[in-house]
Amino acid sequence: MEANVVASGICSGTQQLRTVGGREPLVWKFGGTSVADHDRLRAAAKRMVAAQRAGHDVVAILSAMGTSTDALSAMAYEMSARPPLRELDALLSVGESVSCALASMAVADLGSHAVSLSGPQAGIRTDDNHGNARLNDIEPVRIREALADGSIVLVTGFQGMSESGDVTTLGRGGSDASAVAVAAALGARECEIFTDVPGVFTADPRIVPDASRLDRIRHEEMLEMAEAGAAVLQPRAVELAMTHGINIHLRSSFSTEDGTWIGQAEGRFEARGTFDVTGIAHRRQESLYGVRDVEASEVAAALAARGIAMGTAVPRAGGLLEFTAPGVGAPETTAALDAMEIPAKVNENLSSLAVVGLGIGRRPDIIAHSLAALRAAGIAPRLVTTMPGRVSVLVDPSLLEEAVRVLHATFIPVAPDPRLMVGPAA
Amino acid sequence: MEANVVASGICSGTQQLRTVGGREPLVWKFGGTSVADHDRLRAAAKRMVAAQRAGHDVVAILSAMGTSTDALSAMAYEMSARPPLRELDALLSVGESVSCALASMAVADLGSHAVSLSGPQAGIRTDDNHGNARLNDIEPVRIREALADGSIVLVTGFQGMSESGDVTTLGRGGSDASAVAVAAALGARECEIFTDVPGVFTADPRIVPDASRLDRIRHEEMLEMAEAGAAVLQPRAVELAMTHGINIHLRSSFSTEDGTWIGQAEGRFEARGTFDVTGIAHRRQESLYGVRDVEASEVAAALAARGIAMGTAVPRAGGLLEFTAPGVGAPETTAALDAMEIPAKVNENLSSLAVVGLGIGRRPDIIAHSLAALRAAGIAPRLVTTMPGRVSVLVDPSLLEEAVRVLHATFIPVAPDPRLMVGPAA
Repeated sequence: MEANVVASGICSGTQQLRTVGGREPLVWKFGGTSVADHDRLRAAAKRMVAAQRAGHDVVAILSAMGTSTDALSAMAYEMSARPPLRELDALLSVGESVSCALASMAVADLGSHAVSLSGPQAGIRTDDNHGNARLNDIEPVRIREALADGSIVLVTGFQGMSESGDVTTLGRGGSDASAVAVAAALGARECEIFTDVPGVFTADPRIVPDASRLDRIRHEEMLEMAEAGAAVLQPRAVELAMTHGINIHLRSSFSTEDGTWIGQAEGRFEARGTFDVTGIAHRRQESLYGVRDVEASEVAAALAARGIAMGTAVPRAGGLLEFTAPGVGAPETTAALDAMEIPAKVNENLSSLAVVGLGIGRRPDIIAHSLAALRAAGIAPRLVTTMPGRVSVLVDPSLLEEAVRVLHATFIPVAPDPRLMVGPAA
Repeated sequence: MEANVVASGICSGTQQLRTVGGREPLVWKFGGTSVADHDRLRAAAKRMVAAQRAGHDVVAILSAMGTSTDALSAMAYEMSARPPLRELDALLSVGESVSCALASMAVADLGSHAVSLSGPQAGIRTDDNHGNARLNDIEPVRIREALADGSIVLVTGFQGMSESGDVTTLGRGGSDASAVAVAAALGARECEIFTDVPGVFTADPRIVPDASRLDRIRHEEMLEMAEAGAAVLQPRAVELAMTHGINIHLRSSFSTEDGTWIGQAEGRFEARGTFDVTGIAHRRQESLYGVRDVEASEVAAALAARGIAMGTAVPRAGGLLEFTAPGVGAPETTAALDAMEIPAKVNENLSSLAVVGLGIGRRPDIIAHSLAALRAAGIAPRLVTTMPGRVSVLVDPSLLEEAVRVLHATFIPVAPDPRLMVGPAA
């Protein structure tokens, strides 16, 4: 790697700037399915060693193997109905320690050297909210030392250390978030996230056979897709990437093909084209709940006590209040209301889907076309919400897949497009 | 300016990278009130000359003087009830030509040299949508040549040239957008926008005396504030700045104090603090309209025909459909529906306000606190909508100002904060 590089031109997300006198490491993350068994761990180790032999410093953040974290959780709840959260974190964090230690052994077997570091050892500092800790800071001292020693570094994802010196787990989206945070702390401009899908698609390819893998997508677009239900990457990690200027390469660990680059936008002024709609995201369950003679503030407070964010709240005649709680299941939502003795019922089981694209909130043509296309297919929206980055519609669940296909056909060209890769069947 | 700069460290929005061998010009924009009369024009010219004498290249994009564009528009409609749009643009564009030519004369009087360029001369290329043209590309050849000659360059804002060689005006937000676009085309990382307010405040200071000027704010936060009604900067310009990596310095032309920097985020991982809520934005008019036995798709289409984006649409019992059209007045909205022979009435005249902050959609605590604070003040929301970057509430217009003050008091600390500048009274 060049030790001294003169930067020319304007710094953009796609240009790599090396710290003068230093090297920018590769920062990779492997998800649970990508390290699910010994074969997968060896395959990951092979990639790391190959990269190291090509001259790169490699830092890999690993998830626990397969569904081992769920198994650990089950063990905890078998032991106690109310396990102390500190101890629960001490238990759950071992999953990542296992995968990192095994991966380190695999690297050694390949003739190279790797050091596994726990979250605390890697300098990942969090608050003390066990089970849902937030990343406060990262001081990657030991990571840098190990790299300087010529080692590949394996870091346990999903965890960190609180100020009181205890292991904390990061909650939903924590693995991807910790990987992006480590990249930021190391001054890397990119973070590769290896997962079990080939990238981000214009719609769920299991519903839309014509869906194509996106070659590149902006942070803000990915955020909207994720917020609207596309589960491939959590908003939390995307937000971190956005604020720290990190480009994420989301790709399959089961292939050598490029995936989707999620990063800073390319400038295009205001020229319109086929890129105005990024894709169609959906969520199978988005219920419409109803309460009577209860105020929106009470509902929001009951939901917040369980960490649930209210979506839209619509007061109706006769003291009825209808509301949504996107991204959270009905049992969890009604339980939150029960806990505050608010009798709630699911008025309607619905699904949501969204046409995602930056600035769609100011594109009346796209809003109108979305609804016209659904209407032509006989699909009546139960609620329409326009947001800056998407127009979202609630529909009857039996019509969801058809609705997704209809909107995809309306907005996403099927013919090859420079911005789209060919779909998964190719 | 250094002709060759070795970049050290990680490129961030706050570091200036100069093109190796070139210079990055200052790109300024002066709004209508900032060039409203000869004295203001001279004041602007003085700033430009001072900067040039300090060694900078200066490009200034000017709006028309004061409300002269409105006066020109009135002249057009006095001449014809339906003026051809091409001719309307040819007429309206003279306003900026006047201010730029006068400013150039003022610069000459100060002993320096300035060249005024129209949008077409400056290489600003648009589509042919007269009155609402979109920026396709900018080739700043003459701007560069004039700078190389040692001139200050004055560019007419709000206009460009269509492919057929006609002057086009850019529509709402076009002045700020053209300035940001020129900055991008010249490789500048910053654009200073001089206006008649000292910056972006945590709420409208005319409603909230405690409101403070924000020292810096992220692009995404400004976008949310603007979408939610904060009129100081149009979403269009902010989006352009975001996609082109331009930091905007929004400041008063009547003072030498720093204003608000709108740009790339500083990394803070996930640490919480007082920065979670950016501010409170509001919109005085956001009506709730009602139609009967008409589908949401028909309403959206009627609105789209007039360039109006539907907000939220709520089907109710008995064939009633309620909807909003944020940012557009009731006369315009009902006219759009009349044009399609859809009888619409304003069900309720309402106002909207929003608690703005990145990721608020996933902050149930902020959502709950917002509603609780309003409830404690006896303010019942007519509709609650949660979006990724804000929670928005419709209220009775007579309660709007109280609601804004209540929410500001709830979320924005009054004590001096490193991130906030002292409010306008200081």
